[in-house]
Amino acid sequence: MSNSTRPVLPHDVRIIDTTLRDGSHAMAHRFTETQVRETVRALDAAGIEWIEVSHGDGVGGSSFNYGFSGTDETTLVAAAREEARQARIAVLLVPGIGTVDDLKRAHDAGAEMVRVATHCTEADVSPQHFAAARELGMETAGFLMMAHKTDPEYLAKQARIMVDAGCHAPYVTDSAGALLMHEAKARFEALVAEVGDEAYVGYHGHQNLAFGVANSVIAQEVGVKYIDGSLCALGAGAGNSPTEVLAAVFSRLGIDTGLDAGLLLDAAEEVVRPYLPRWPKMDRNAIVQGWSGVYSSFLLHAERAAERYKVPAHAILRRCGELGYVGGQEDMIIDVALALAEEQAA
Amino acid sequence: MSNSTRPVLPHDVRIIDTTLRDGSHAMAHRFTETQVRETVRALDAAGIEWIEVSHGDGVGGSSFNYGFSGTDETTLVAAAREEARQARIAVLLVPGIGTVDDLKRAHDAGAEMVRVATHCTEADVSPQHFAAARELGMETAGFLMMAHKTDPEYLAKQARIMVDAGCHAPYVTDSAGALLMHEAKARFEALVAEVGDEAYVGYHGHQNLAFGVANSVIAQEVGVKYIDGSLCALGAGAGNSPTEVLAAVFSRLGIDTGLDAGLLLDAAEEVVRPYLPRWPKMDRNAIVQGWSGVYSSFLLHAERAAERYKVPAHAILRRCGELGYVGGQEDMIIDVALALAEEQAA
Repeated sequence: MSNSTRPVLPHDVRIIDTTLRDGSHAMAHRFTETQVRETVRALDAAGIEWIEVSHGDGVGGSSFNYGFSGTDETTLVAAAREEARQARIAVLLVPGIGTVDDLKRAHDAGAEMVRVATHCTEADVSPQHFAAARELGMETAGFLMMAHKTDPEYLAKQARIMVDAGCHAPYVTDSAGALLMHEAKARFEALVAEVGDEAYVGYHGHQNLAFGVANSVIAQEVGVKYIDGSLCALGAGAGNSPTEVLAAVFSRLGIDTGLDAGLLLDAAEEVVRPYLPRWPKMDRNAIVQGWSGVYSSFLLHAERAAERYKVPAHAILRRCGELGYVGGQEDMIIDVALALAEEQAA
Repeated sequence: MSNSTRPVLPHDVRIIDTTLRDGSHAMAHRFTETQVRETVRALDAAGIEWIEVSHGDGVGGSSFNYGFSGTDETTLVAAAREEARQARIAVLLVPGIGTVDDLKRAHDAGAEMVRVATHCTEADVSPQHFAAARELGMETAGFLMMAHKTDPEYLAKQARIMVDAGCHAPYVTDSAGALLMHEAKARFEALVAEVGDEAYVGYHGHQNLAFGVANSVIAQEVGVKYIDGSLCALGAGAGNSPTEVLAAVFSRLGIDTGLDAGLLLDAAEEVVRPYLPRWPKMDRNAIVQGWSGVYSSFLLHAERAAERYKVPAHAILRRCGELGYVGGQEDMIIDVALALAEEQAA
């Protein structure tokens, strides 16, 4: 599929807000329609172009394995669409969790972009989803998750697969918040070199080692155009790069984002903060995720297993890192907890 | 005074922990002797060489203007000294708040380093304190606070004044957490060029714009040797660069700090977290401090004034930034709050 139709960007960089999708992990997937409406209204007023709304694990994520949604995601997408005056709504789709039918339902409810997420070495499961999305006239982005798990050159080849399949913007997706600055930069440069003439490159960061914002600045410097954030950093692990900090920092740097940083600070403080179950933070569990390279959304699963099997969550996470588990292997967390409990008892 | 006696460093970089000094701001200066003993024991076991213990505003800081200490600082320094097996104790001294007599008392209680802090353009008030410290046989460091307020070249000349007066390590002290990466790097390079042959250069960061850890990595790359952190980021504003994150990141980078990152993660989680009044965070007030360049320890003062005069704390902080207030002008916060209250009423 030709990709000559990549969207025109009105600003130097496109900040995509994922409070209502990655934040869903931190909310145990219990966003209410009211919370979604108020958050969309505030983001829209501050100039955010794209707002991602889904179960944390994407459309169709509501399940026993990933956690059931409090409110049906189609209802939430439709509510978001209704509130947005200039902003548009994106959804996440993880092949294997979400299907093309789920995507069509989200599109019918008003979603105009899909971000298809695969493990960083498995881009070859994404083409049918990009094709379906482009058929529907949607914009597309592609998440190469756990991007620390492969080298820059291989990651760029995976981005190439996505772009050839119709992806407008493959992402360096640092799901574990594990990428140090030089590691992130090498990946950004490799993707920009590989696909930069036809597509945009994106960066999705987490704060587990405190580099989400720093890596975003580096990303913009080397030609990355899509950068993700969440209000109050609401997201898996230690949270995402805070959207309000990205806006303040890019304003200081003189980079045009089209955003009103003051309004985003108000949105974080007055709209999102009141419903936060807890402020995302670099506590031991989150730091261990970044340090050992463990998928961010494993955090709540590990904490629940820790409580149930009386072993420390940080030990579970460190073992998951040693064993190299990736997104989709959430069920192994219980096995790890059981093994640690047995070792403890021995 | 000759400075040929600069200390020999056993590791690539010297991480100095300031939980028990900068953290004092976040604790409203109410550290107990038990908290100090337990924190020192944990830091010492993890390999930290220097632990700073003082009122947040340094020796002699206990006062109406800066807040009274819960426990006399001499008691806390002596307790810290008693617990430390290999670590040594540092104190902060802000000329105009602390005196040479305060320094002598701290030295008698066991402090072996003093960090003399001045506004970034006022190093000329520091020489007598460096002279007194060196007379006492103490190691010395010098804080050039609010380092974003002057350019790299001028800051380097101020560092030169300190080094000529006997300072072993002048610091780029980012009191407001305002320095973006290129701004921090330019200051590190200027100081290393100016004094790097005779002294070490230091960096003290805050997380208001999320750059404390990133700037620490850049600092080490360009020759900075002293880097400050706090457990759980406990400190003024959005907190300091977390010591446990610095340890984890430098271990990933293969830089020798002499620290056990796992023990520091445990220290943060099991010793400091239980006594945190609140986890330091990038909330609106803290981000505005970094964005507008306002002294980090203004935060609690502004929040108290906000409550008393019914005006938003972030508005007070933003006004303080516009008016260019610096450390030592805490009394102006009330004036700002009163002015805003009048404007609100008008």
